[in-house]
Amino acid sequence: MNPQDLIQKKRDSGRFLPAEIVAFINGVTDKTWADYQISALMMAMFINGLHQSEQNALTEAMLNSGEVLDFSELDASVADKHSTGGVGDKTSLLIAPIAAACGVFVPMISGRGLGHTGGTLDKLESIPNYNVNLSTTEFKKIIKKCGFAMMGQTAEIAPADHKLYALRDATATVESIPLIVASIMSKKLAEGLDALVLDVKTGSGAFMQSEREARKLAKALVKTGNAFNVKTEAVISDMNQPLGKYVGNALEVFECLTILQNETDKQTKQTLDLSIELAARILVLTKTASSSQKAKQKIKDVLASGEALEKFKENILLQGGNPKICDMPELLLDKNLLEVKIKSPESGFILEIDASEIGKAVSLIGGGRIQVDDKIDYAVGYSCDKKLGDKIKEHESLGTLFCRSETQAAKVLAKLQMAYKISLEKPVRKYELVKEIIS
Amino acid sequence: MNPQDLIQKKRDSGRFLPAEIVAFINGVTDKTWADYQISALMMAMFINGLHQSEQNALTEAMLNSGEVLDFSELDASVADKHSTGGVGDKTSLLIAPIAAACGVFVPMISGRGLGHTGGTLDKLESIPNYNVNLSTTEFKKIIKKCGFAMMGQTAEIAPADHKLYALRDATATVESIPLIVASIMSKKLAEGLDALVLDVKTGSGAFMQSEREARKLAKALVKTGNAFNVKTEAVISDMNQPLGKYVGNALEVFECLTILQNETDKQTKQTLDLSIELAARILVLTKTASSSQKAKQKIKDVLASGEALEKFKENILLQGGNPKICDMPELLLDKNLLEVKIKSPESGFILEIDASEIGKAVSLIGGGRIQVDDKIDYAVGYSCDKKLGDKIKEHESLGTLFCRSETQAAKVLAKLQMAYKISLEKPVRKYELVKEIIS
Repeated sequence: MNPQDLIQKKRDSGRFLPAEIVAFINGVTDKTWADYQISALMMAMFINGLHQSEQNALTEAMLNSGEVLDFSELDASVADKHSTGGVGDKTSLLIAPIAAACGVFVPMISGRGLGHTGGTLDKLESIPNYNVNLSTTEFKKIIKKCGFAMMGQTAEIAPADHKLYALRDATATVESIPLIVASIMSKKLAEGLDALVLDVKTGSGAFMQSEREARKLAKALVKTGNAFNVKTEAVISDMNQPLGKYVGNALEVFECLTILQNETDKQTKQTLDLSIELAARILVLTKTASSSQKAKQKIKDVLASGEALEKFKENILLQGGNPKICDMPELLLDKNLLEVKIKSPESGFILEIDASEIGKAVSLIGGGRIQVDDKIDYAVGYSCDKKLGDKIKEHESLGTLFCRSETQAAKVLAKLQMAYKISLEKPVRKYELVKEIIS
Repeated sequence: MNPQDLIQKKRDSGRFLPAEIVAFINGVTDKTWADYQISALMMAMFINGLHQSEQNALTEAMLNSGEVLDFSELDASVADKHSTGGVGDKTSLLIAPIAAACGVFVPMISGRGLGHTGGTLDKLESIPNYNVNLSTTEFKKIIKKCGFAMMGQTAEIAPADHKLYALRDATATVESIPLIVASIMSKKLAEGLDALVLDVKTGSGAFMQSEREARKLAKALVKTGNAFNVKTEAVISDMNQPLGKYVGNALEVFECLTILQNETDKQTKQTLDLSIELAARILVLTKTASSSQKAKQKIKDVLASGEALEKFKENILLQGGNPKICDMPELLLDKNLLEVKIKSPESGFILEIDASEIGKAVSLIGGGRIQVDDKIDYAVGYSCDKKLGDKIKEHESLGTLFCRSETQAAKVLAKLQMAYKISLEKPVRKYELVKEIIS
């Protein structure tokens, strides 16, 4: 099976046999396919689509291109949560210690931020000396000790995905449901899970802006997970505004630590609510709790008792960071930052927020990456002072930018102000954080 | 305009503005577009198509990616013929000297053979020391002296096409009419022509096997040529059997020289007839003759008088070859070759010939290229002893293979025999060499 014949088949809308998909992924992994052949086939897949059988075969071939973790020796449930990415989306930092405190093992392999979205690895690296570059042996050892570990994708896990994703990013073939599903699921299935909860974001700060597309993606992810015998559910959650209070790496860890310390306010409660919802589904899927209600009560218990915070502390110690931040989260904050208020140009109610513009603004001042190899300033970020539906007066603060200089602030101030749409009348629209559960 | 945005536009079936096409071709030429981005866009163009305005813009941008020849100083008509490629298709070697003998200048930039088709450059190089690697200055000088010159595509002529063609070949994006048109026309328009005649082949030995596709391609080529103020016509000609008598580089030059010596037989007459048809259209388009009939008479005159042969002799001398072959074409033939007859397994009439199988067989014994960098054995080839509609007896010869060894013959004998379909009854189908003129 030479590359041209396979490319031609999909170009002409043919349906691949599993062996043909395996030949393609082998060619990607052993480098016998040239990059330009891979990208031509991915464009043909993007435009002409993949049947469910092809999507499953692609996921399986990508999964088998690398190492698959095995936790069968643990004699306990292994589960994970994956989000399609958003702005201020920090629930992983709460869900992992919560689930671990409830007795579920969480082998969380995460990614880095790009463009308007943040990445769990970058957030963790805002904790001085926290090490996300673990070998799979170290990863498993830490999970056994404290119930969870967090690391980046290694060269051993789904190497074909690593290659394909970089090419898709450069060739405008990212937003294809079958390709997204194969990319996400090949990595998640490599974690050797019993259960997986997916947080599929929809709205102004999500990759899938429309709810219809988000639902399609969620259904495809759930179908694929279950086809591989991993109990899978998806939550469609709102990303029409940043999640919770802060956007920016150290600020987001700070927000999570205050929540684990049982200190919440109106803004951070949103982060907690979504984390509870997602963690509860993990507990139910792994039969750690017999109902969603019982799961939520269990979660509230491990939060109230400080057990979840204690798990995070253990983990930070094991991954090389300073566990003291769990008692003094303010250690994470840089006091030399300039705080610039984004003032509302008029009085009224907040009708719309372009979350992706807020994410981009934080990236532009160094809090994220515009290009893949950009260096990150972990301290900078943004605080949401008002959110959707809130009443605001002229000149009152919509949000606060934490930045390095006036020049930096000037670059993004207008963009941030324009990210908000103010209405004179109180909006009738309801802002539901969780829109739908797909199981 | 970054590559991703342009790729996305065509991926989503958008229509490019001329400036966007120019940005793409500039990116190809100055190497700021990666090969994988170029191939992704070409796949999107292949599947979603190009509008006529996009095809013209692509042709123009590719043309302007390199040098455009200018013959305005010559004070005479400049014309060329281009064929979409076939088996035994040697008319260029007759049309160039005929047109030159009639007073039309012919700057012929040709290609090499690949797969089942031959290339004019390879045929010329079977003439010992004939040099096809000319600079454009040498090329123009030779044209001024003898009326025509023949060379390969230089790095200066349409360099973007060179790059795109290599990638299309490796990514199954060859058979796209807009991409074929832009590729052919960017090179031909760079010759600075007044008129162009296209020989679009259809049938078992052609790239466009169906007559419907060939007609579509012919129309698109003619439309594009005329849009650039070059008088353009296309002839749709039959490629359901090799053209004329021989397939193989030296053998094809030999066939042309015997024709120029006014020695034709039933098989070689076909080569002559198509050459006259195509050359006559050049004479009419350049107003060298006032009608097709007068053009054909003029051509017959320069053949009968030996003026066309004399032109070829002059050209061979100027391009470094041995002009003696014009008087003794048999000098081209290698007497050490083994001649193996392909015998008919039954008696009847020849109903079908798979010309591409004959072309491939010749390539397989070294007469052409399977891979781009294969070396060529100029002497080997095939002679068509019987053609479509001919009566044949069991064990009578269908054709003769000129090869190096019995082992070589054994590799292709069965394939050659199977390329013929014999019918017991005389076929009613007519074999028209010229199927249609598109102007």
